[in-house]
Amino acid sequence: MGSTLLITGQEVRQAARANTHTGPTAGLAPGYIQANLIVLPSKYAADFRSLCQRNPVPCPLLAESTKPGSWDAMKSCIPNITSTALIHPGNDLDLRRDIPRYLVYRDGEIDGSARHTDLLATWRDDDHVAFLIGCSFSFEAALCDAGLAPGHIVGGRNVPMYRTTIPLNPAGVFTGGTYVVSMRLYKKHDVERVRAITAPYAFTHGEPVAWGWESVEELGLADIMKPEWGDRPLWPDGKELGPQDGGAGRSTDVVPVFWGCGVTPQEAVVRARLQGTVMAHAPGHMLVLDCLDEVLKVE
Amino acid sequence: MGSTLLITGQEVRQAARANTHTGPTAGLAPGYIQANLIVLPSKYAADFRSLCQRNPVPCPLLAESTKPGSWDAMKSCIPNITSTALIHPGNDLDLRRDIPRYLVYRDGEIDGSARHTDLLATWRDDDHVAFLIGCSFSFEAALCDAGLAPGHIVGGRNVPMYRTTIPLNPAGVFTGGTYVVSMRLYKKHDVERVRAITAPYAFTHGEPVAWGWESVEELGLADIMKPEWGDRPLWPDGKELGPQDGGAGRSTDVVPVFWGCGVTPQEAVVRARLQGTVMAHAPGHMLVLDCLDEVLKVE
Repeated sequence: MGSTLLITGQEVRQAARANTHTGPTAGLAPGYIQANLIVLPSKYAADFRSLCQRNPVPCPLLAESTKPGSWDAMKSCIPNITSTALIHPGNDLDLRRDIPRYLVYRDGEIDGSARHTDLLATWRDDDHVAFLIGCSFSFEAALCDAGLAPGHIVGGRNVPMYRTTIPLNPAGVFTGGTYVVSMRLYKKHDVERVRAITAPYAFTHGEPVAWGWESVEELGLADIMKPEWGDRPLWPDGKELGPQDGGAGRSTDVVPVFWGCGVTPQEAVVRARLQGTVMAHAPGHMLVLDCLDEVLKVE
Repeated sequence: MGSTLLITGQEVRQAARANTHTGPTAGLAPGYIQANLIVLPSKYAADFRSLCQRNPVPCPLLAESTKPGSWDAMKSCIPNITSTALIHPGNDLDLRRDIPRYLVYRDGEIDGSARHTDLLATWRDDDHVAFLIGCSFSFEAALCDAGLAPGHIVGGRNVPMYRTTIPLNPAGVFTGGTYVVSMRLYKKHDVERVRAITAPYAFTHGEPVAWGWESVEELGLADIMKPEWGDRPLWPDGKELGPQDGGAGRSTDVVPVFWGCGVTPQEAVVRARLQGTVMAHAPGHMLVLDCLDEVLKVE
């Protein structure tokens, strides 16, 4: 099945389940919500829920397992959004198989021994609890519609993501975490429009957390040309930055704009060095839901 | 009327309204929720609501005006808590008079020309929107009950509060804000119990945001002996710190523990330099509700 035919959330999940699609989900099922997945031993579930509630900008909680071990149903954590709005009653869900590629951590260390296209061997039916976290794909569509397509989309790359020194509000076992941010370069005079367009997407990070060249230092970033995840940044027109553009030769007309990023909770889980088996989607390989992005917009 | 007779929220509000009590509310109506007040021109209300939603730890939103200009009714913003649980139907409320002392800001500058014991001259019935924010008095009672009374309570002082360099997630006009934190010193081996006891009070700041001497630098504090608000810190037994105790001569058995503080939203409002008239309670002079602290505990 060609990935161009995957136009609904259900179709992407079915293709991932059949392993006919094992690549990234960017561009698939346009308009459908794509979500980050975290799966934890049940003893950490309450602390993780609290971590999300205390840090809703980088960790917007969309849904969680209906009960420990359950992989075929999620309950909505979003006010006024029903669980059946996320996964339609006529469709089905298998969190262990419906994502193209997964990561597995054991006692805080990543298991690099295999490429995980399902979680059948590691999921514990008596214990594992899944959480879905919002993803910035939702507001990127809104930016494109407004003629403010991010440079990485114009240039056909992944968004650059950075580890910052801004602390998360700790919650139980989850201490020592910091914000991960995604970055898009914009013309200075477009920043207020960019803020206003993304603000209503509260469940997919909402408006930026920082902007302007001074925020590079404030966030504790060493070099915007060296993101920890994703690809190097591009100018708003999709062109490459020169070696000096992120440093001494900075543009004053174009500035970096930073948003909370869904990698944050995965990082927080890794830093907490949890005992037992933790699972997540592989970056860029998301769970696609049955709900359209516009539904999560808060007016 | 002696303040020792003010044993319910309604009694404190009535005494403030009659100006028979114009002092701080600490220790009055024990067990009743005391709240921070912010009153804004309606055009800033949506951005302020968003600021609270994006920063629930320092800015936990309890309630807001039922409509612009309304001063006699509030609607609850807390899931599963009704508006009538906050102010009982048999009691009444006048936000313009029921707090012992207020602060008034005009175009971002504090009006120090008068002592404001009511807001009758400044409140606009067609425009002002009030917000109530949680206060850490609620979890202090729980700490005392567990034999972990904070040093400032043992020593009969106000809690020390500090301006940090940790950025708030910006929201609309509210940019450039930072966390304000309150601080209590605890024995190192008590910190995990202190975290666990305060964690359920999610609507009154919840568990600490940082602890340990290394957090003094991480929060960007110059000197814990010089708080921006409140009184100098005291040891857990209520004794004075020496001149070196917060610096080179630091104890290793006792460490500072920091919580989000309800002064944060007032600071954010001041920093935003809003045009028009903004009003708030005077620090320590809170609005006392009809609801008991325990009701806001999240299990």
